Amino acid sequence: MSALSAETGVPVATLKYYLREGLVPPGVATSRNQAQYDETHVERVRLVRALTEVGGLDLATVARVLATIESPDVDRLGVLGASQRALLGADFVDIEDATDDADGRVDGGDTTSATSRGRAWAAARGWQLDRRDPVLDELDRAWAACDAAGIGLDEHRMDAYGDAAELIARIDVASVPAAPRAAVRQVVLGTVLVDPVLSALRRLAQQHVAVSTHGGRHERAEGS
Amino acid sequence: MSALSAETGVPVATLKYYLREGLVPPGVATSRNQAQYDETHVERVRLVRALTEVGGLDLATVARVLATIESPDVDRLGVLGASQRALLGADFVDIEDATDDADGRVDGGDTTSATSRGRAWAAARGWQLDRRDPVLDELDRAWAACDAAGIGLDEHRMDAYGDAAELIARIDVASVPAAPRAAVRQVVLGTVLVDPVLSALRRLAQQHVAVSTHGGRHERAEGS
Repeated sequence: MSALSAETGVPVATLKYYLREGLVPPGVATSRNQAQYDETHVERVRLVRALTEVGGLDLATVARVLATIESPDVDRLGVLGASQRALLGADFVDIEDATDDADGRVDGGDTTSATSRGRAWAAARGWQLDRRDPVLDELDRAWAACDAAGIGLDEHRMDAYGDAAELIARIDVASVPAAPRAAVRQVVLGTVLVDPVLSALRRLAQQHVAVSTHGGRHERAEGS
Repeated sequence: MSALSAETGVPVATLKYYLREGLVPPGVATSRNQAQYDETHVERVRLVRALTEVGGLDLATVARVLATIESPDVDRLGVLGASQRALLGADFVDIEDATDDADGRVDGGDTTSATSRGRAWAAARGWQLDRRDPVLDELDRAWAACDAAGIGLDEHRMDAYGDAAELIARIDVASVPAAPRAAVRQVVLGTVLVDPVLSALRRLAQQHVAVSTHGGRHERAEGS
């Protein structure tokens, strides 16, 4: 275990905790006090660290995400729903059935749509979604928080963000492998670990756009 | 104070804590045990809640962000740097000076660029950035975490994400008002509060793209 700790940079006490919580599988016992760990353990420890430190997930969510990655009975179409559900919690269980049901889409129109700005917006945009998708509730909450803070996210600006989100999603979906288990792994990790990349890119692009628009105008006179 | 609690839905004990920590300005004392709070207090409490609950910021970061919003001595060009710095911490203080200095840009090329994948990528893309910008370190960390988890973020995929980030940044920067204080407020809150909107949009767009690409093919035969 001290070799595993040295290899991953994770303290032994933390590794013991991961083992107790089942986040990392036990090693092969070589004596009463010794166990052997191989490359799969190193990879798993690094994955748990990435999900907690970069992804910002708590250990309960990490456990759910790992269980989803290991699950063999998720079909290719259900991969996204199952993965997003693992990230959000276990209280929304039947999205696959709903996705096959035409009435389950946001463009079906129902009482919920009337009170959900996100659902109305997504429906107007023609996005095919399950109207019970909890990510739509997340969108409502995040949109309302912007409103409360005086960030004017009007429909025009949301549409522009929607265009960018579709661009990103096409790259995401194109990169999902065909094998179900690999697909779940890719989708879950891609959602959690690529978000921080996109967040950093957005802030860097803001700097670049601001400097090249406003700064450029100032500096042109100086001839550089 | 109980009226302020009723108006905002925030418990009185929490409001007292916000007041003690200086996150919310004191009310106007009307007697020894009473103070009057107005609409600015309601707005400030809602802002603190949005930053902590939707933005996921701790109270120390919220305090720094609020101080940046209140600061009158940030010029228009320094707004983005000051704002991003408030979100990241106080240990990077001279980005404005550096932004005006041609040698401070990533495309200047230095020893750091050689060891930072994010800096090399941004320089190749022609993004005008201060090479000491801590967001570049965040990008490196987030990119490395993807690598460690087996998410193949090659340069091609990063370029596609970079395109989307520029699209988003142009919307962001266009929405920044000219008045410095309003600009700082917009940038800080826009960074913290719009990220969750974009994250939700990305996941919804993934569902839509996956269903309209794969699901659509299945259902076409059923004639709906």
